[in-house]
Amino acid sequence: MTHIDAAKAALAHLDIEENPNAITAASRDFFWYSPVLKKRLDHLRADFVVRPRSEAEVIEVLKTCYAHDVPVTTRGAGTGNYGQAMPMRGGCVMHLRHMTAVKSCEPGRVVVEPGCLLKDLDAFCKEQAGHELRMVSSTWSTATIGGFIAGGSGGVGSVTWGSLRDLGNIIRLRVVTMEEEPRVLEFTGEELARVSHAYGTNGIITELELPLAPAYDWTGVFVKTKDFAAAMALAEDLANSDGILLKIASVYEAPTAKSYFQRVAPFVEDDDHLVGLMVAPQSMAGLVTLLARRPEVEMIYRSDDHDWPRSPGLVFEYGWNHTTLRALKVDPTITYLQVRYGYPNSKELVEQMRGSFPDGEVIQHLEAIRMEGKVAFAGLSMVKFTTEERLEEIIQIHEDAGALIFNPHRYTLEEGGRQHADNRQLDFKREADPKGLLNPGKMVTWDAPDWDYSRMYAYPEMMEADD
Amino acid sequence: MTHIDAAKAALAHLDIEENPNAITAASRDFFWYSPVLKKRLDHLRADFVVRPRSEAEVIEVLKTCYAHDVPVTTRGAGTGNYGQAMPMRGGCVMHLRHMTAVKSCEPGRVVVEPGCLLKDLDAFCKEQAGHELRMVSSTWSTATIGGFIAGGSGGVGSVTWGSLRDLGNIIRLRVVTMEEEPRVLEFTGEELARVSHAYGTNGIITELELPLAPAYDWTGVFVKTKDFAAAMALAEDLANSDGILLKIASVYEAPTAKSYFQRVAPFVEDDDHLVGLMVAPQSMAGLVTLLARRPEVEMIYRSDDHDWPRSPGLVFEYGWNHTTLRALKVDPTITYLQVRYGYPNSKELVEQMRGSFPDGEVIQHLEAIRMEGKVAFAGLSMVKFTTEERLEEIIQIHEDAGALIFNPHRYTLEEGGRQHADNRQLDFKREADPKGLLNPGKMVTWDAPDWDYSRMYAYPEMMEADD
Repeated sequence: MTHIDAAKAALAHLDIEENPNAITAASRDFFWYSPVLKKRLDHLRADFVVRPRSEAEVIEVLKTCYAHDVPVTTRGAGTGNYGQAMPMRGGCVMHLRHMTAVKSCEPGRVVVEPGCLLKDLDAFCKEQAGHELRMVSSTWSTATIGGFIAGGSGGVGSVTWGSLRDLGNIIRLRVVTMEEEPRVLEFTGEELARVSHAYGTNGIITELELPLAPAYDWTGVFVKTKDFAAAMALAEDLANSDGILLKIASVYEAPTAKSYFQRVAPFVEDDDHLVGLMVAPQSMAGLVTLLARRPEVEMIYRSDDHDWPRSPGLVFEYGWNHTTLRALKVDPTITYLQVRYGYPNSKELVEQMRGSFPDGEVIQHLEAIRMEGKVAFAGLSMVKFTTEERLEEIIQIHEDAGALIFNPHRYTLEEGGRQHADNRQLDFKREADPKGLLNPGKMVTWDAPDWDYSRMYAYPEMMEADD
Repeated sequence: MTHIDAAKAALAHLDIEENPNAITAASRDFFWYSPVLKKRLDHLRADFVVRPRSEAEVIEVLKTCYAHDVPVTTRGAGTGNYGQAMPMRGGCVMHLRHMTAVKSCEPGRVVVEPGCLLKDLDAFCKEQAGHELRMVSSTWSTATIGGFIAGGSGGVGSVTWGSLRDLGNIIRLRVVTMEEEPRVLEFTGEELARVSHAYGTNGIITELELPLAPAYDWTGVFVKTKDFAAAMALAEDLANSDGILLKIASVYEAPTAKSYFQRVAPFVEDDDHLVGLMVAPQSMAGLVTLLARRPEVEMIYRSDDHDWPRSPGLVFEYGWNHTTLRALKVDPTITYLQVRYGYPNSKELVEQMRGSFPDGEVIQHLEAIRMEGKVAFAGLSMVKFTTEERLEEIIQIHEDAGALIFNPHRYTLEEGGRQHADNRQLDFKREADPKGLLNPGKMVTWDAPDWDYSRMYAYPEMMEADD
């Protein structure tokens, strides 16, 4: 009996997935946006999948796997990128889909289990309290709140509320450690940084307390323009309009709208840049006034009053990483980069990057965000992939110009982040995961403390492909 | 029978005030914050006061006074400064206290008559929709919504929502003109600027549609520090903390707290600077985390957990112009200035002004506000008044340094503003008030189009004092 079999047997009374296809499905996230990761991670597969129904069962899984030296990779819906939920050494995938309870909800605040879908949580909070999450990912309809907090950094809503790591955007996380006797810890304040955006490498979130924002029947808007600078300026100026309440402000360089946004395409031309907005209904009059001052832009759609034969759906489902997803479906060679164009030179830096790739190899897609009170742009640039070497060159050109890259073609926290140790996370992993069994291979400073980031880190214990 | 008597007789079926003391009371606003205005306006008194109950009665008042050439000065609670509701030529004061109906209220939006008190409107909206006004004046408990929109520029809430004139902060105003046959107009978008902050000089607002913000049980907080720069930095950094939701962030230079804030005084020393905050309850954990990073500041009060024997009340009732009011009660020589310290050099400019008045002649009081998306400071500096000449010097020192002054020692719109014609307001006055009977003497570009602002404008038709 292997360690794996022993752990599986000890957990047999829990909800364990036996179907090989289902195990394969539960072993994959959206790593395949990256051809670099697709080549390296496509073969990964858990040995078994367990779906705990409660914190007590989470503790049981972690304790048992600890005893049997079985790695545990925890996941929500698996809609993240960066390979963050890929089981590098196989072992156990712990799927939190059963833990969906909303423990309490009031205007401004919710307490929830990690497996609740963002969409379901928003519906519940709106019904219960007229509120909704401050921030969600564009995968809102399928992603979980636990996965978003453990793996995300911001998204829809960041134009108003900044990033998840900003003080006040997470109130409390309840976390289980993977030790001989797992502990249950409550983190607030400075401690939150230990486990938020840590991919489940150093503890498992079993409960979240989050601030809420008022829920409105957000009006979706598309604006087109032939002038890319005008599109950027519109998004930035709207984000700076204190009286106009936004949920998202996205900029899509031509020909994104025509080529990749099927239901928008009939209303634009190849050379039309697009701005996607979601605006509180009480702010629509202000938006219309602002647009009327700009003859160079034209509103082509507003969800509260339009004659499009087929609704384009939620405007935020065109933004953030859904842009790349829509492009990928049309052109499988598309991949992407995550770029940060900081204040105050964000627009200039974007224009510099546009000038550096004049032949459509890199297509600009920007999201207006708040960074320490200032409006900046997150870039989720679409890249027509040719070779890994060229992708590296493209990244280097961005970094040389001063545009920060969060490289989505890497599977470690550090390489996808700021390329240095996060000592709060590393220190807590030493304490909470002494055997290094939680989501192994994702924290390079745990495995290789002196790593110099001169090349892509390759986790030496990654399971090998069969071929 | 004089014109006045004829108008009064024609309106006799309305609610007309006959009591001389009540007429005097209804003829005065808070102009007396300014010794300059007190000297010049103290004798002003309407001939009669009428309190319409409906828009139809407003129309009747305006039509009748038009026919009889009687000036009409409209007021809410009369808590404004700048002498904005003072009847320069006597005549009719139209008091809108009966027009208090809330026509509709939903999350994000309210339609209301002008005479509704801010406090009552907030209570209604909170009860009905869990929402409240985005911005209110510190005179919230006594001031009316119509007076705030007609005479205010921002206030409590501007740290998040910017100024009233920012797009989106007013949705619609319904306005009655003063013509032979008064018209009723609905203004939205660009048209709003015609009558908002126009002191009722060119039309009377009979209905307002305004955006709402979520209502929380805001936690009031006081923080003290010996370091003024630390106080400013705290307010600014909090206003830049996208995840921490604020209603107000005020900075009070020492010895304001000790000298003028009676219930705060036992907990501070003469040299303590104070920061007053109101924070959404779900943001308190984030605030506490941020404060813990700053050993130079100390939280001395939080309204949700304190042992002060006497509650200090609402923290916003220490801010904006309530600061001056509290100081005036202790030291009658105190007056004030309204200053704008713009982004990005606001803190440096405040320090420069502090250095220019080292002997306590000017005491800094700052309110963090949003201006076009950036955090800046509105200054409501307290000034120990000696002479008008010295007050002018103090203003000049500010202006020479680049700090914009909205001079509260002037009674015309232009002198209290940016010292030039607002052509939108002036053009609309030509159309809506052809006889110049609405709040006469308050628009210098109407009375004296070529005024050069080299000295204080003196309205030649102002009624004379009896003495």
